Amino acid sequence: MINILFSAKSERWDEYESPLTNALAQAGVQANLSRDHDPVDVDYIVFAPNGPVTDFTPYTKTKAIMSLWAGVETVVDNATLTQPLCRLVDDSLTNGMVEWVVGHTLRHHLGIDEHITKQDGVWRDFVYPPVAAHRPVTILGVGALGAACGQALHQLGFPVTGWSRSAKDIPNITCLHGDDGLRAALTGAEVVILLLPQTPETENILNAERMALLAKGAFIINPGRGPLIDDDALLAALDSGQIAHATLDVFRTEPLPAAHPFWAHPKLTVTPHIASSTRPETASHVIAENIARGEAGQPFRYLVDRRRGY
Amino acid sequence: MINILFSAKSERWDEYESPLTNALAQAGVQANLSRDHDPVDVDYIVFAPNGPVTDFTPYTKTKAIMSLWAGVETVVDNATLTQPLCRLVDDSLTNGMVEWVVGHTLRHHLGIDEHITKQDGVWRDFVYPPVAAHRPVTILGVGALGAACGQALHQLGFPVTGWSRSAKDIPNITCLHGDDGLRAALTGAEVVILLLPQTPETENILNAERMALLAKGAFIINPGRGPLIDDDALLAALDSGQIAHATLDVFRTEPLPAAHPFWAHPKLTVTPHIASSTRPETASHVIAENIARGEAGQPFRYLVDRRRGY
Repeated sequence: MINILFSAKSERWDEYESPLTNALAQAGVQANLSRDHDPVDVDYIVFAPNGPVTDFTPYTKTKAIMSLWAGVETVVDNATLTQPLCRLVDDSLTNGMVEWVVGHTLRHHLGIDEHITKQDGVWRDFVYPPVAAHRPVTILGVGALGAACGQALHQLGFPVTGWSRSAKDIPNITCLHGDDGLRAALTGAEVVILLLPQTPETENILNAERMALLAKGAFIINPGRGPLIDDDALLAALDSGQIAHATLDVFRTEPLPAAHPFWAHPKLTVTPHIASSTRPETASHVIAENIARGEAGQPFRYLVDRRRGY
Repeated sequence: MINILFSAKSERWDEYESPLTNALAQAGVQANLSRDHDPVDVDYIVFAPNGPVTDFTPYTKTKAIMSLWAGVETVVDNATLTQPLCRLVDDSLTNGMVEWVVGHTLRHHLGIDEHITKQDGVWRDFVYPPVAAHRPVTILGVGALGAACGQALHQLGFPVTGWSRSAKDIPNITCLHGDDGLRAALTGAEVVILLLPQTPETENILNAERMALLAKGAFIINPGRGPLIDDDALLAALDSGQIAHATLDVFRTEPLPAAHPFWAHPKLTVTPHIASSTRPETASHVIAENIARGEAGQPFRYLVDRRRGY
């Protein structure tokens, strides 16, 4: 019998208690799952950064921290964290992200906003968009989420370029890396999708200079992390027409304050951090199976490299 | 040297003269392409229903009529037409249709309209849509266009049912046919996409009784032909909430008159027959290759069955 501490907001406990208990049983893990264990007795922590645990020091026999969140930037720099940390990589999170990214890419590609907002009885001549094959899409960040979005966009005919810090090789995606690769990936791109992790290196990665590399009238879609974009540079590029429209799901401050200029900008769509959500049913299985691996002496999946930050 | 008559609006001639001339040369067809041939000398007619030719009687040696349109309902009943008639089946038309259908399906699935229209500074709690796997889509009409849309929606995780007049077997699509099949295909569907040909049998196929079979709050997307839907029944189903939203690209009268109630209905999006368009570059190759087949004594592709009407 192992002890698993659930450390997240109480609403999460209500959502997770039953599916996580079932998933652990299914994975063959005999566990005492609770929100209240003596730290020295805890084998695993199921963890959200906004839950009660902030100091990992007393968890002396804890074998791993299982994040409920895909992004770990708010915990990775915690100096008290010496235990292995696993990100949440969940197919349903991936599928939801693919739906959101493809939906907004096609929305911009097809000019759907204009049709939704101009229902005024005028049958307008319409300039056909280029076919997808002539609309290059660049994805910054081709981890599990970015790569899945890239495959789906490729299936629809878009030429897809992916950029990452280190070299990758992914079918159907032109993979570039490093500083020169970033310049090449952005040059002439008509749609840019940001799915990088938040690290000191990726902060403001899409700045004024790099936005200028994109095709005139490009679209920016950010379901990744708010700080990846230089906000003031984005507003200037929207005003100049260099960027035709930006759809942002993540922000430096969330909820985005009502007075923030993003809300009022006619070329900017704010969505309230909904691009994809973790579903307790599926996430519970991912976490339970990873704990079962640990108990069987197998290496953990989705282990965070503390040095890289993700 | 064969004589090809180009019979369509003069704007089409401007678009097609050069690509069609090149495509014929590439296909090895020695042709005299003109808008002005003596009818008795014409070997083939490249044809749009709104062009000058309306009486096919004098075209006594014409081997085939090559339609520039995918839909042939306005010519198929022409009593003077005794020559073989070929529809236009063009990959770029298919690709464009897939983009439009997938874009609007995801738009409705994700509730994108609400995000576009409510940029009012309020960070709203959001009820997540079901994942695509729990959002059944039914496509009425699984010819070249419908089947391609079905594959793309399947790739994104939607369960796809296809209905057609006669039995079909298409990978990744649950294929139903006949009257009982239609009832089964519509029962519980959350998204219905209409891509049937317009024939006497398909007129008003989506009527009040059949709309009542759909899941409450279903979405209707019609890029096919206007008369497939009973317009009054649709307005009533939108008002009752049985249908949450309809996006219509085709209408009984086009352009849709400014006074038509579709324009003003808040749950209805009108687009001006743009779901997909024929691109001269690619369509020219399809037509040239079909003429080359005829000249080589091979059977024509995409031959219309006059009895079925498509």
